[in-house]
Amino acid sequence: MLTLYIGNKNYSSWSMRPWVLMRQAGIPFEEVQLRFDSFAPDSNFKQRLQAVSAAGKVPVLVEEGLSIWDSLAIAEYLAEKFPEKHLWPQQGPQRARARSMVAEMHSGFTTLRSLCPMNIEARLPEVGARLWADNPGLREDVQRLEVLWTPLLTQGKGPMLFEQFSIVDAFFAPVCMRLITYALPIPPLVQSYVQRVRNLPAVQEWVQAALAEHDFRPFEEPYRSAPAN
Amino acid sequence: MLTLYIGNKNYSSWSMRPWVLMRQAGIPFEEVQLRFDSFAPDSNFKQRLQAVSAAGKVPVLVEEGLSIWDSLAIAEYLAEKFPEKHLWPQQGPQRARARSMVAEMHSGFTTLRSLCPMNIEARLPEVGARLWADNPGLREDVQRLEVLWTPLLTQGKGPMLFEQFSIVDAFFAPVCMRLITYALPIPPLVQSYVQRVRNLPAVQEWVQAALAEHDFRPFEEPYRSAPAN
Ligand SMILES: N[C@@H](CCC(=O)N[C@@H](CS)C(=O)NCC(=O)O)C(=O)O
Ligand SMILES: N[C@@H](CCC(=O)N[C@@H](CS)C(=O)NCC(=O)O)C(=O)O
Repeated sequence: MLTLYIGNKNYSSWSMRPWVLMRQAGIPFEEVQLRFDSFAPDSNFKQRLQAVSAAGKVPVLVEEGLSIWDSLAIAEYLAEKFPEKHLWPQQGPQRARARSMVAEMHSGFTTLRSLCPMNIEARLPEVGARLWADNPGLREDVQRLEVLWTPLLTQGKGPMLFEQFSIVDAFFAPVCMRLITYALPIPPLVQSYVQRVRNLPAVQEWVQAALAEHDFRPFEEPYRSAPAN
Repeated sequence: MLTLYIGNKNYSSWSMRPWVLMRQAGIPFEEVQLRFDSFAPDSNFKQRLQAVSAAGKVPVLVEEGLSIWDSLAIAEYLAEKFPEKHLWPQQGPQRARARSMVAEMHSGFTTLRSLCPMNIEARLPEVGARLWADNPGLREDVQRLEVLWTPLLTQGKGPMLFEQFSIVDAFFAPVCMRLITYALPIPPLVQSYVQRVRNLPAVQEWVQAALAEHDFRPFEEPYRSAPAN
């Protein structure tokens, strides 16, 4: 049995990746949610996490005593374990390109990530407009997404980046949520991909659960002092 | 034929990973070095790189028109292409652990990375001591390395983290170079692993080439105003 430890659905972009991947691909798993109280060593979150991971971060996938503690390592583990699910594109060159995109996302996009933290329930278009105007690095990160996605969306058969849903779409799902929350300006082709990701059944399910959480965490909220309502 | 585009051997930690991996594993490749002049869009470095990668970063692995533009994606590509080289540990659980470590390295250790940039020819023990005293985040990053490595070094059969040389050692090789340059305090067990990595034939070859470069690049030098001699 696979058990996936995740954080808050509203905030935890790294948790969203393997959760959406498994749910959308129809891989059964048990979910253990560790709500963020704080990231202090004595927090409830860190204390409960300690039992499965010394890294002290979510997500963690546990299978019979084996802990896999990083979203990309989890994705590779699942791709190996369920070859029939084709979690990576099947063709070698496509797979290499997919992995390059995912690994670039994993180690990069630091400006987008730090200035626009995932916050599914929030709508922050004014904040987004100001960040956009003030931060060339943010515009560069979004521009880079466009360069990555556009050829796949124009030449590909769609609806996802490599036709069928794959690890790539799961890894970009949290980015799509950020683009929506901060209403960052993107061309229509990219916008429609963002909407298709938003409409994936697994993403819808995640978003609904995020909206139902009502956990306002000030340390995850650089731009709001209170929840929407 | 595989062609690996890399940056300066003295500075480019990301380039070092796949280069050491391929050389140490005996995978033949052609090397194209793009020396860093600057990272401005009109730099020689960026102009030459453009032909193989829109991401504008090294390393890039090229095979018959296919470009793979991230060190981790390159490692996965090679592991698939050369299964007989056992670039990942062969046992499933060990492989999952190895991938977790590599992916954590890929997306984390940001304090170590930013405060202690790789600089093979430099010896900066005083800088290292000051950084160590002033930055809890740096101490935490090194502490985390110890937590990752120690059980593998005590329980494992050695000499590398997963007995035989693997992608994991290649990914930590640049970290070992930082530990040496900044003389960060580490326990003897960890120190001896760092030395074993330093003594790998592929690492020795890389280091010798780095020392022969004599390219002093001020934008890669937060702590020196001139080369050693
Ligand atoms: N590289 C890791 C990053 C995971 C991560 O940073 N998770 C955050 C929550 S979204 C966390 O647990 N943070 C706790 C902390 O930083 O102490 C992955 O891909 O899984
Ligand atoms: N995630 C990439 C990062 C590569 C990277 O940042 N490379 C640096 C050199 S060590 C670079 O090319 N920088 C150019 C720039 O930032 O413009 C990888 O693993 O290959």
